[in-house]
Amino acid sequence: MPSYINMSAAEKNAELKKVYEEYKHLKNMGTALDMTRGKPGFDQMDVSDNIFNLVGNNTGYKNCEGTDCRNYGGLDGLIELKHLFSQIMGVDHSQIIVGGNSSLNMMYDTIAQAMTHGFGDKPWLLQEKVKFLCPAPGYDRHFGICEYFGIEMIPVENTKDGPDMDEVEELIKDESVKGMWCVPKYSNPEGITYSDDTVRRMAAMQPAAKDFRIMWDNAYAIHDLYEDGDTLLNIYEECVKNGTEDNIIMFTSTSKITFPGAGVAAEAASPKNVELLKKRMTHQTIGPDKLNQLRHARMFPNFDVLKQHMRSHAVILRPKFEAVLDEFEKELSGKDIAVWTKPKGGYFISVNVLEGCAKRVEELCAKAGLKLTSVGATFPYGCDPKNSNIRIAPSYPSVKEVKKASEILCCAIKLAALEKLTAVDN
Amino acid sequence: MPSYINMSAAEKNAELKKVYEEYKHLKNMGTALDMTRGKPGFDQMDVSDNIFNLVGNNTGYKNCEGTDCRNYGGLDGLIELKHLFSQIMGVDHSQIIVGGNSSLNMMYDTIAQAMTHGFGDKPWLLQEKVKFLCPAPGYDRHFGICEYFGIEMIPVENTKDGPDMDEVEELIKDESVKGMWCVPKYSNPEGITYSDDTVRRMAAMQPAAKDFRIMWDNAYAIHDLYEDGDTLLNIYEECVKNGTEDNIIMFTSTSKITFPGAGVAAEAASPKNVELLKKRMTHQTIGPDKLNQLRHARMFPNFDVLKQHMRSHAVILRPKFEAVLDEFEKELSGKDIAVWTKPKGGYFISVNVLEGCAKRVEELCAKAGLKLTSVGATFPYGCDPKNSNIRIAPSYPSVKEVKKASEILCCAIKLAALEKLTAVDN
Repeated sequence: MPSYINMSAAEKNAELKKVYEEYKHLKNMGTALDMTRGKPGFDQMDVSDNIFNLVGNNTGYKNCEGTDCRNYGGLDGLIELKHLFSQIMGVDHSQIIVGGNSSLNMMYDTIAQAMTHGFGDKPWLLQEKVKFLCPAPGYDRHFGICEYFGIEMIPVENTKDGPDMDEVEELIKDESVKGMWCVPKYSNPEGITYSDDTVRRMAAMQPAAKDFRIMWDNAYAIHDLYEDGDTLLNIYEECVKNGTEDNIIMFTSTSKITFPGAGVAAEAASPKNVELLKKRMTHQTIGPDKLNQLRHARMFPNFDVLKQHMRSHAVILRPKFEAVLDEFEKELSGKDIAVWTKPKGGYFISVNVLEGCAKRVEELCAKAGLKLTSVGATFPYGCDPKNSNIRIAPSYPSVKEVKKASEILCCAIKLAALEKLTAVDN
Repeated sequence: MPSYINMSAAEKNAELKKVYEEYKHLKNMGTALDMTRGKPGFDQMDVSDNIFNLVGNNTGYKNCEGTDCRNYGGLDGLIELKHLFSQIMGVDHSQIIVGGNSSLNMMYDTIAQAMTHGFGDKPWLLQEKVKFLCPAPGYDRHFGICEYFGIEMIPVENTKDGPDMDEVEELIKDESVKGMWCVPKYSNPEGITYSDDTVRRMAAMQPAAKDFRIMWDNAYAIHDLYEDGDTLLNIYEECVKNGTEDNIIMFTSTSKITFPGAGVAAEAASPKNVELLKKRMTHQTIGPDKLNQLRHARMFPNFDVLKQHMRSHAVILRPKFEAVLDEFEKELSGKDIAVWTKPKGGYFISVNVLEGCAKRVEELCAKAGLKLTSVGATFPYGCDPKNSNIRIAPSYPSVKEVKKASEILCCAIKLAALEKLTAVDN
């Protein structure tokens, strides 16, 4: 494919005309697609349908310890799920709290607790300034929590190995930097997995703030698209080696294993942190929905069953990811107008278009009936300084729809690039 | 029955000896009963067993609006349940937020939000002093929330009509008094329902603090033991008449309708407050477990079905309450050593024994194998200043066990009273 950058002015104008005709054609097809969020599709949710047969109808309501899961009690969740999450999260089951349907809620609560009660130091709300490191692009809802609590967000560049650790190591010398958001495996939105070196440096960090916490959102811990998925170093073990295990709180959930709205979330931390978190929880709730936990415990009696289950998701998701990547390869490769990631798992593909063009791409797509995640949403304060990053969430539509969406997207990327490049010429 | 108070010293000593023999006999029976918490019994939970057939197995996952309840979305809950809770809570369905499995969690979140973001004024954590009125005896978990957040609790005397409103009206002149806990119907632990006059005076309150909130925990809104249960005036309507509707936030749940651990909770408030609460929630969660909400919506297609369902609970609970009250009548009536409530609903009976005797009663019961709610737990900071109040939770044990428990309790009350009365004499 010829690079758009190296084209003559005449060639660019000719290409613009051609791509514009393509765009007009696509626009007239009456497409109506929503790729704004990383929602699993119907077919994926159907994979877990058997879960409804596992509680009720003479199956009994007791877990392996004899607890009637219908009644009150059990603040930190069922033992079976602690063991299961222990294998997902790589810490001892005693360090796990199994919660309700939302890991986001657990993260929110953790920050809220820090605001009013601190983490061994003054409540963050009573400290002069609280800042958080935000590898960007990242997960908009993480940034939303910071914004709600008035925590100043400092964007950190992402490399192919995770956050730029030189930058991070410099920034944590500031005592008002109290934490950092991380999606360490198949990151949202880039699908990057932190390298061993990144994890080791992160575990070795000695932040100036004694109440610094890494918010380790391992949402896609076992969400591989291929058998040879990425591997993530066990950060907790690395932290223990460095004596920094109190610096990290880890989260995950089954939202993208069973049901987005009715899964089970978990958090894991050092014994000291778990004690703190549980102390708050005794005032917050009598306990999570143990019946839904019981459903999950019976659905996944061991880790192998869970891994097999995830293969069913991969079978559904893989063609959707490949449809996007194939179209990118076909339409954008060699043109020097876009750089994209090729994740081996997770829920997103990230593409960086020419600087200043992302919003125009979003607009062109919208006009052609394709709704994308709002440009900027993946950055602190909703602002992508380069106006370049686009998050693609291919999970919800069908493969056919994803193909159509990719066509529209590629066309819009080309069109926006040519508009920019020809405008520069004129 | 002869009054213990009017007995001669010799009569008291003889009675003490007799009651002590009774106690020894009961102690030797090897009873092991737990009446510490207001937990529904197995038989009550079985009443809702059909709920498990209502989602899954070809029943579909969509609600009346076509939402697939398995997926993300729906921050404030399903419309069907908003309509159902609207009838329980007496406000328009648009003012209702349907949540997860815990109304306690919703209350905690409301206070937590006030601490960090306030209610239109400065965040409570940044205000010099925050106080809460706590009608006592009351619900220990309400007081626990205040304690956790460092909110100073001011006990308010309960009358047979609810909190002493003369006292309340005086106390709210203090600008640092920011709110008040209320269990207005079949209160925990006394089973009292606020009189119309109490509700009207409460709705008419003009607290000095502009960010004052009544935390209206209507946990037992439809939990009658008898057809002619208590009726509670609609406080929201009274508030609207007074223009004080922003002063109140209301809570309820199905914890004691379906399952304590896996019910559905709801909160209701003025449009202005609902907007504030939802703003926080957008940062806190993507949404509640809609599948469990759907189960409930299908279980209770209308209010009549729900009311009929509650009658099944009443049939189970009534004999347990009556077993306690019959034993009280038989053993304590006329002795001038105990005053108890006779609730027409709810989960608790409250008995006031002679001042200074409650802890001794608790101890005597424990030694005879009956665990009671810890004395003092129903008061702010866990301290009953008169050491007199005992909360009885008859729902969990069987009728036979409740009878046995009541025997032990009455015997312990008599024994503790006689110990006190004879000690005074000696």
